[in-house]
Amino acid sequence: MSEPFDAVDVIVAKRDGRRLSDAQIDWVIDAYTRGAVADEQMSALAMAILLNGMDRAEIARWTAAMIASGERMDFAGLSRPTADKHSTGGVGDKITLPLAPLVAVFDVAVPQLSGRGLGHTGGTLDKLESIPGWRAALSNDEMLRQLNDVGAVICQAGSGLAPADRKLYALRDVTGTVEAIPLIASSIMSKKIAEGTGSLVLDVKVGSGAFMKDAERAGELARTMVELGTDAGVRTVALLTDMSVPLGLTAGNALEVRESVEVLAGGGPADVVELTVALAREMLDAAGRPDADPAAALADGRAMDVWRRMVAAQGGDPDAPLPWARETEQVLSPADGVLTTLDAYAVGVAAWRLGAGRARKEDPVQAGAGVEIHARPGDAVRAGQPLLTLHTDTPERFTRAREALVDGVVVDPAGTPGARGALVLDRVAAG
Amino acid sequence: MSEPFDAVDVIVAKRDGRRLSDAQIDWVIDAYTRGAVADEQMSALAMAILLNGMDRAEIARWTAAMIASGERMDFAGLSRPTADKHSTGGVGDKITLPLAPLVAVFDVAVPQLSGRGLGHTGGTLDKLESIPGWRAALSNDEMLRQLNDVGAVICQAGSGLAPADRKLYALRDVTGTVEAIPLIASSIMSKKIAEGTGSLVLDVKVGSGAFMKDAERAGELARTMVELGTDAGVRTVALLTDMSVPLGLTAGNALEVRESVEVLAGGGPADVVELTVALAREMLDAAGRPDADPAAALADGRAMDVWRRMVAAQGGDPDAPLPWARETEQVLSPADGVLTTLDAYAVGVAAWRLGAGRARKEDPVQAGAGVEIHARPGDAVRAGQPLLTLHTDTPERFTRAREALVDGVVVDPAGTPGARGALVLDRVAAG
Repeated sequence: MSEPFDAVDVIVAKRDGRRLSDAQIDWVIDAYTRGAVADEQMSALAMAILLNGMDRAEIARWTAAMIASGERMDFAGLSRPTADKHSTGGVGDKITLPLAPLVAVFDVAVPQLSGRGLGHTGGTLDKLESIPGWRAALSNDEMLRQLNDVGAVICQAGSGLAPADRKLYALRDVTGTVEAIPLIASSIMSKKIAEGTGSLVLDVKVGSGAFMKDAERAGELARTMVELGTDAGVRTVALLTDMSVPLGLTAGNALEVRESVEVLAGGGPADVVELTVALAREMLDAAGRPDADPAAALADGRAMDVWRRMVAAQGGDPDAPLPWARETEQVLSPADGVLTTLDAYAVGVAAWRLGAGRARKEDPVQAGAGVEIHARPGDAVRAGQPLLTLHTDTPERFTRAREALVDGVVVDPAGTPGARGALVLDRVAAG
Repeated sequence: MSEPFDAVDVIVAKRDGRRLSDAQIDWVIDAYTRGAVADEQMSALAMAILLNGMDRAEIARWTAAMIASGERMDFAGLSRPTADKHSTGGVGDKITLPLAPLVAVFDVAVPQLSGRGLGHTGGTLDKLESIPGWRAALSNDEMLRQLNDVGAVICQAGSGLAPADRKLYALRDVTGTVEAIPLIASSIMSKKIAEGTGSLVLDVKVGSGAFMKDAERAGELARTMVELGTDAGVRTVALLTDMSVPLGLTAGNALEVRESVEVLAGGGPADVVELTVALAREMLDAAGRPDADPAAALADGRAMDVWRRMVAAQGGDPDAPLPWARETEQVLSPADGVLTTLDAYAVGVAAWRLGAGRARKEDPVQAGAGVEIHARPGDAVRAGQPLLTLHTDTPERFTRAREALVDGVVVDPAGTPGARGALVLDRVAAG
């Protein structure tokens, strides 16, 4: 078959710092998806994009080409506006679980397509699968029906959405090209735009437990995604939020569901409540419900009602006991003093090693594994006091989990107690 | 099998502008050769090297690792010193043919491993294969014996030399990563060092018909290769030579052999003689024969004697008539004036399209195809005078060959006649 472009010419153009034309971008994404551009060619192009960048118009076209590689969903038949949230991923980030039903309380439909965990960050679907009977895979029709009936759905993306992205993401993962902002932004946004949501709130994490360690790059990613969404007609806002410390007091699957249910019951850790309400306000505002009071809907049980219906609609039993791991060990404070560091990345790796996460995408996860947190940075602690409880079904994992925590949990005998810094660091909206 | 490094870590290090360690380089070349590093990983690394560079020590280690991927030849058993020449490739560059026997006249052994043409530059082996009976493939033993008996051999490199380079070169060719100076230099020098020559003269071409179009990058490549050779104990010198105009008056296989024989007979075009003698002087000097007079050995027939023995030793008949193409057409001057441009690249592409070269490495070449040149830049010409003769066995190729020449052959009615500029532009020796 005769191709309109030569892959080497496209690679060389970006390598030499030139813009790619719309036609080149459309072709290279399509040709890669059908195999006419080889993996080794796309990885060289991805590295050239990472090092030489793409401008706003190129990123928009790249995203559109990835959307065009698959199907688009259509929520026009719903009587309600739609709003979605995406987090770039963090440790203890269970916010989707209370947030989706909370926003649905106010007659906004929340079509939340989620993923599984890979590496030190957990996956929303892995967490929900610790609920007996709950299933992640819905057909498009089932998803639409649940949005009509319940108002919120959290499920896995169908394979028809942006197949080019799935192939490209797997390639980037093994070729050192994950960190390119144009590629991260287009990967996230192609799926969100193809999904057809009317508004979108992005939670861009910053800090040791996040994909972006520094605020400048996180801000650039946030701006790029807000521009992409806005250009595609999706009302898009981003919050930059702190991920130097785990969110809440749990990292792990069933552990995090339990904590989410506490939040839906009107309790739970202050930071989880704060971020859930902040993101709900943004989603409700973008969806045309600026007067909604999400904090009240957590306190009075309306969010919990939607949660229970949402879980049940996907086969889960909201009253079933959640699993616990078979074994636990505690991490004790070595001294009197102040807990000065509780590093998000270290806790994430420990939870991962205990069995909450997976090293390869085929691996199973343990529903009960993870880390419970008993003290937060700034807390005064006593020697021998439990700082963390480690949970696993496979106790041989305790040693490597503790190794991950060595430099990540620091008690300073001379430290002074205090409160943690701001959780929401910045807000990025369309200029 | 457990690997000491992760390919992604190596890619990320170079992507982020860090040095690769010796151990990382050794591992990545070895792992790529045996397939533990995938093509898509090596191409991403190659792009990162192209854009972020390698320092002198990294390039030397990279080259050593490619040498270590295969066998090394050993000429220590020869009673004579060895000298080799490498050209980065140009149009009409038949210099190896008269040069190898010329240097051998002075009791210097010339083990000239050569390649085939790809693209617009011809290949030495393709040219010699137009001699009836001549064969390019020799065993290492045959090569050594011929070096002892005749003193010069031009043959194809065995597959045992630097297999990592062969695999990497094929990858770079399809991934837009050919132009990285560290990779070009290590590719050339790994084979020359593994071949075991004692001295080496590099002919680095500059200009439209060369791989390097500008003198600055050609100079950087020359310096890099001279450093690599010197660090490996090979006496190495480079000449930068002009390739904006074809060398000599022919581009094509049998056409160039015929011209080479004219040079060996004491005649031939002045530029071919000049460059042959200049390179011979450098090789003889590096091999410890500073008083040799190569111009005399061309004039008095001694070089021709070695040529005839060299061709015969590889099965060729030096007296057999060389093939001619079945069809010819002339390119005529459109006006009275001066030929101001005879672009090397345009002539190279025309010869290629006439059948002298190949588009894919499996393609055959036509022995008789190519371009004969009747006027040189600076020559006064009359309207209707033949400037070029095009040769091919397949006359349907004339049209596309002429298209290649449209902007490359320019007669200016107001031009002033003159001589061409210097052929040898610069000389680079170990600092």
